[in-house]
Amino acid sequence: MTRYALTLAYDGSRFAGWQKQAGDTPTVQSALEHALSQMAGETVRTFAAGRTDTGVHAAAQTVHFDTAAVRPLQAWVRGVNALLPNSIAVLHAQAVPPHFHARFDACARRYRYILQSAPVRAPHLYQRAGWTHYPLNENKMAQAAARLIGTHDFSAFRAAQCQAKSPVKTLYQLDIARTGDLIKLDFHANAFLHHMVRNIVGALVYVGCGRLPPEHIDTLLAARNRCHAPPTFMPDGLYFLGADYPDTFGITRPSPPAWL
Amino acid sequence: MTRYALTLAYDGSRFAGWQKQAGDTPTVQSALEHALSQMAGETVRTFAAGRTDTGVHAAAQTVHFDTAAVRPLQAWVRGVNALLPNSIAVLHAQAVPPHFHARFDACARRYRYILQSAPVRAPHLYQRAGWTHYPLNENKMAQAAARLIGTHDFSAFRAAQCQAKSPVKTLYQLDIARTGDLIKLDFHANAFLHHMVRNIVGALVYVGCGRLPPEHIDTLLAARNRCHAPPTFMPDGLYFLGADYPDTFGITRPSPPAWL
Repeated sequence: MTRYALTLAYDGSRFAGWQKQAGDTPTVQSALEHALSQMAGETVRTFAAGRTDTGVHAAAQTVHFDTAAVRPLQAWVRGVNALLPNSIAVLHAQAVPPHFHARFDACARRYRYILQSAPVRAPHLYQRAGWTHYPLNENKMAQAAARLIGTHDFSAFRAAQCQAKSPVKTLYQLDIARTGDLIKLDFHANAFLHHMVRNIVGALVYVGCGRLPPEHIDTLLAARNRCHAPPTFMPDGLYFLGADYPDTFGITRPSPPAWL
Repeated sequence: MTRYALTLAYDGSRFAGWQKQAGDTPTVQSALEHALSQMAGETVRTFAAGRTDTGVHAAAQTVHFDTAAVRPLQAWVRGVNALLPNSIAVLHAQAVPPHFHARFDACARRYRYILQSAPVRAPHLYQRAGWTHYPLNENKMAQAAARLIGTHDFSAFRAAQCQAKSPVKTLYQLDIARTGDLIKLDFHANAFLHHMVRNIVGALVYVGCGRLPPEHIDTLLAARNRCHAPPTFMPDGLYFLGADYPDTFGITRPSPPAWL
């Protein structure tokens, strides 16, 4: 048995999320396991760093699997890509220690949210970016974002169905940059609660369009109540940029791609 | 009767080109005329600056039409957008002089080609960018491009079915810029022959990967023979950026959008 780690990119708009489901629901995991099992000539099970929701994209998802099949490394990249739909691509494959786990060994994760603020939504950004017709003040959004950095109880930004043991997470970074009518929000945290990024984006849009002052973030955090916070923003603009692992595993850490 | 000019963006991967066809073939023109006719309450015919091919995108296509319907200007933007699929959007509408013609008054046109040079094609660039697995030397491509600037007989880069009266066109600009594994090629000419951009991209890719030296462009131009030139590149990465009109018409000239 060898354990392999793959780096994967996918267009989440074509799938009902990462996780395998009963029936014919198209998910990334079921498409990937189907292709890997064909290549291996045996049933392959996969485990991902981030179990992305319906419509959420990945630029560099890490996935591990075990197989008894002996194949050159390129078989797990080019060979598997030939068996996958155009909406999923294996970018990189490497053998890893047998105790490596893509989900449980991830010590931090990165997400990017892309938001278009424009009177008319660009057709090319449909299912690729969040959209609001409100003009947004990105400086106010950055002021609000600064109040979220650090270790907090993020219950105000946690979905009801979240399975995490604790609502306390550490947000290392939340950078906001604007180019024309596009705003990029880069998140880096030790872990994320369910819908945490989309719920924070929802609150920052309220701040950006003037419905809430930046300071109100403190009130939301202190209340620890999802019902008091602005609504969840659409999944379209959310990209999983990848997970960080302890250096001892030697997992390749990709930088954000040029297209994002 | 009032004549209006619209600025339009569309995702060409969803359509068999701009031009209306017999039967149910989905084209941009038929979808747009359907929506405009609904808004006007009468049959509307449209004329576009650039009749894009199957799979070719537009960031700022100019279209004109005549109507007796009296509507506020926003009806031709937001109202029509509500009647259009997500793959087409009206960005801007304005009344224009009755002698303005979107196609015949265009004095120059701009196209951008986006090309990914990477071992694995990014899923998000499928139908959005051209792709080659060859590493490309963009400096050599720029040397070749410089040889195309100016007034030339572009027969070597002209499709057999091209209907232009003359193969002599003036290329004002062909800029090449790289960001990571993405190469952007910006074309500005008084007019383009059928498939001219995609045929030039095909030749520049041959230069970039070392199959042809940059100087060979002179030989191709001089031979004026399509059969001697490298093959047409895929439509996926081609974006019509817009047409230039004499200032007297007062047509809004949009800059390339932030998403491109």
